[in-house]
Amino acid sequence: MTPSSRYVLGLVAGACALAALPVSAVTAAPPVAHFTLTNGLEVVVVPDRRTPVVTHMIWYKVGSADEPAGTSGIAHFLEHLMFKGTAKNPAGRFSQTLAAIGGQENAFTSVDYTGYFQRVAREHLPMLMEFEADRMTGLVLTEENVRPELDVVLEEHNQRVANNPSARLGEQVQAALFLNHPYGRPIIGWRHEIEQLTRDDALAFYRRFYTPENAVVVVAGDVSVDEVKALAERTYGAIARRGEGQARQRPQEPPPSAVRRVILADPRVAQPSLQRSYLVPPGHGRHLPEADALDVLAHILGNGSTSRLYRVLVVEKEMATSAGAWYMETALDPTRLGVYATPRPEVSLEKLEEALDQAIAEVAANGVTAEELTRAKNRMVADYVYAQDNQSTLARLYGAALATGSTVAEIQAKPGRIRAVTAEAVRAAARRYLDKRRSVTGYLVKDGREEKRS
Amino acid sequence: MTPSSRYVLGLVAGACALAALPVSAVTAAPPVAHFTLTNGLEVVVVPDRRTPVVTHMIWYKVGSADEPAGTSGIAHFLEHLMFKGTAKNPAGRFSQTLAAIGGQENAFTSVDYTGYFQRVAREHLPMLMEFEADRMTGLVLTEENVRPELDVVLEEHNQRVANNPSARLGEQVQAALFLNHPYGRPIIGWRHEIEQLTRDDALAFYRRFYTPENAVVVVAGDVSVDEVKALAERTYGAIARRGEGQARQRPQEPPPSAVRRVILADPRVAQPSLQRSYLVPPGHGRHLPEADALDVLAHILGNGSTSRLYRVLVVEKEMATSAGAWYMETALDPTRLGVYATPRPEVSLEKLEEALDQAIAEVAANGVTAEELTRAKNRMVADYVYAQDNQSTLARLYGAALATGSTVAEIQAKPGRIRAVTAEAVRAAARRYLDKRRSVTGYLVKDGREEKRS
Repeated sequence: MTPSSRYVLGLVAGACALAALPVSAVTAAPPVAHFTLTNGLEVVVVPDRRTPVVTHMIWYKVGSADEPAGTSGIAHFLEHLMFKGTAKNPAGRFSQTLAAIGGQENAFTSVDYTGYFQRVAREHLPMLMEFEADRMTGLVLTEENVRPELDVVLEEHNQRVANNPSARLGEQVQAALFLNHPYGRPIIGWRHEIEQLTRDDALAFYRRFYTPENAVVVVAGDVSVDEVKALAERTYGAIARRGEGQARQRPQEPPPSAVRRVILADPRVAQPSLQRSYLVPPGHGRHLPEADALDVLAHILGNGSTSRLYRVLVVEKEMATSAGAWYMETALDPTRLGVYATPRPEVSLEKLEEALDQAIAEVAANGVTAEELTRAKNRMVADYVYAQDNQSTLARLYGAALATGSTVAEIQAKPGRIRAVTAEAVRAAARRYLDKRRSVTGYLVKDGREEKRS
Repeated sequence: MTPSSRYVLGLVAGACALAALPVSAVTAAPPVAHFTLTNGLEVVVVPDRRTPVVTHMIWYKVGSADEPAGTSGIAHFLEHLMFKGTAKNPAGRFSQTLAAIGGQENAFTSVDYTGYFQRVAREHLPMLMEFEADRMTGLVLTEENVRPELDVVLEEHNQRVANNPSARLGEQVQAALFLNHPYGRPIIGWRHEIEQLTRDDALAFYRRFYTPENAVVVVAGDVSVDEVKALAERTYGAIARRGEGQARQRPQEPPPSAVRRVILADPRVAQPSLQRSYLVPPGHGRHLPEADALDVLAHILGNGSTSRLYRVLVVEKEMATSAGAWYMETALDPTRLGVYATPRPEVSLEKLEEALDQAIAEVAANGVTAEELTRAKNRMVADYVYAQDNQSTLARLYGAALATGSTVAEIQAKPGRIRAVTAEAVRAAARRYLDKRRSVTGYLVKDGREEKRS
């Protein structure tokens, strides 16, 4: 595990692949325990005793959407700085200790959360929790360790965004989709604001959000609930509640009303492409019935080579070389459902978009077939079952859910809910939400004068 | 003056008509005085002794771009609430007194400032300043007078925005142009946020921003500087400095990079139209040379029936029934230059946009003619001269300038600067700033299924 790979910018689209659950049938769901310490810290324990290994994660309920205006990127920058050490454990000791015992670690930032992950042999769990609890309050930042890390983050921006035309377009589409909600802000931050981030910004953000009442610890693996409870109380439980409100009151979106298009031209584009995001409800609480229908809809539309968009655009009309769809259900606030396609060389993006519009209008008008519905549900439930087999996937599933307004019960009930989604619910979701007025369509094109001028 | 017309939502585009100055030659500029009281309040005096009338304005350096996130509309709502009275002058007394003496009044909110205006016979100026100074600190708000006013504002939103397709499109274009800066927020606010505004929000905003050090008083008319100075010291000078910083640090825009289009369909659209905004520098300080060139450019492109866009699109190509351009130079932060056109019935918006693009590309490539340049400059300088003739226009000119980072000296030097703008500077400004990647193009179309679905 190199330092550069340690810092994974939580691509939200990534989280949805996981959240696109599956469950080994409700009965086979793991006996997950969920409790809260007196200081407000939540703990989830997912026993999995097949191998003597544990996955430990801490999720802070804070992401880029919680950043003070003008300091975009501070959530992600702080994620980097969390590896700079404490008075008790100087910089490097945590990671070196993990490496020495053959452990793995990772960290990620998303719009709604920031998470830290480790996997170790079971006997090292107590030490791990001590390290992690220590850095919840003990972080030491100096100008000497902050400034160089800012350069690391700026270089990460170069690699991930500035030199990646598709990521640049994604930034523009997201910014155009959210007119008022901070989801419109890039997770990594706007470069001109990243450049101005300071030690003081990081410390203020850390003190405000890295508190026991704002954290969820997930332990999955060869442990008992009682054992984790005792450990959690001894380590995290010793941290005083900060007493800050947890309200994550972000400015919300006005009802979307305009069809939007964004064209990004970049000389490095080898292959034009099209992506579109729709504003849709997130997957928790009162949104669930529609969210489940949207989840099934996204699978039918765009998951794999049997999906509707692939079949119509790639196979039947031979206009595209790829096509698909996704739904970012793991989010606190209204979120995105995306569709995308790459045209064959002789097909213009306008023509491809027309065909895409038709394919989507067809679903809104006439719904999906019984076969499509059954295939999607079976696949989704099977995915959920397979996920039970992966300790870190499970840990991530629960952590992300609890950090975005969902619950253990909602996660566990997901397969049952998916099975209950009707063809009519899928059609209704398509009709209501795949309305172009709720969307931004992005074109990625090779740079040419005609795109730039006027 | 009815209560409903009293509340003028400061249409920023309106301010630019004024700011598109003129000056009776530098030598004929009025002997304007500008001084600051010890509590930080700035005063501008524009003597104009032709009639025994004075115009009094107070400008607070706070507008919709200074609102806390999630409370859009609070600047404008507070403007309304400023007429609710104080302990000393109960609701209605100020306005009734003005009406009784034949005075006029008005108020307006913009992205950068909130202003209050009165015009009275000269002998009433002392009373006026006492009233206005009193409500800088003495405002009394109760649930009983706040709630009904919120309904007034919501009704204003209905009339100005919700039932006005062109205004709805303007909101969407502005929101799509500013990805990070709060200029993307409507001045009147997003309706769902206006609905949630409270007395506490208004009082917090009032206490934070309605302070002497955040205000500019402009008195134009039949007064001497000494007289106004004495009056200002006696009235406003008695208010203690609040001591809050004045920093108006708004999140700034990333470099614009994507060509954007917004399509709004509304069943009430009788006539489709097209509007485009470009992100450009504001008209003060280090931006001035380019801002002056942009000002001349906007005049050449789109001011009147001899302008370039009108000539090409309306007269020569017969594609449009109207066409024009404007520059919103009076702004603290990077701002907008707009172009617009209305197609003839048989012309599509796409074709009209192509022709518009060509006309703009022509200016960027080959510049403007000597005749166009001379005509625009003469017109702009003449406008400035004529403005000297209008007391309230002058007062507004200086107030808006000082509330948006400009100075009395910059305003007075404007005619000289305009005369000095070269054809090459105009061409360079067009080439640099009328780049489609810096812009959002809005289409207003009649509602039809094909615009809404997919």
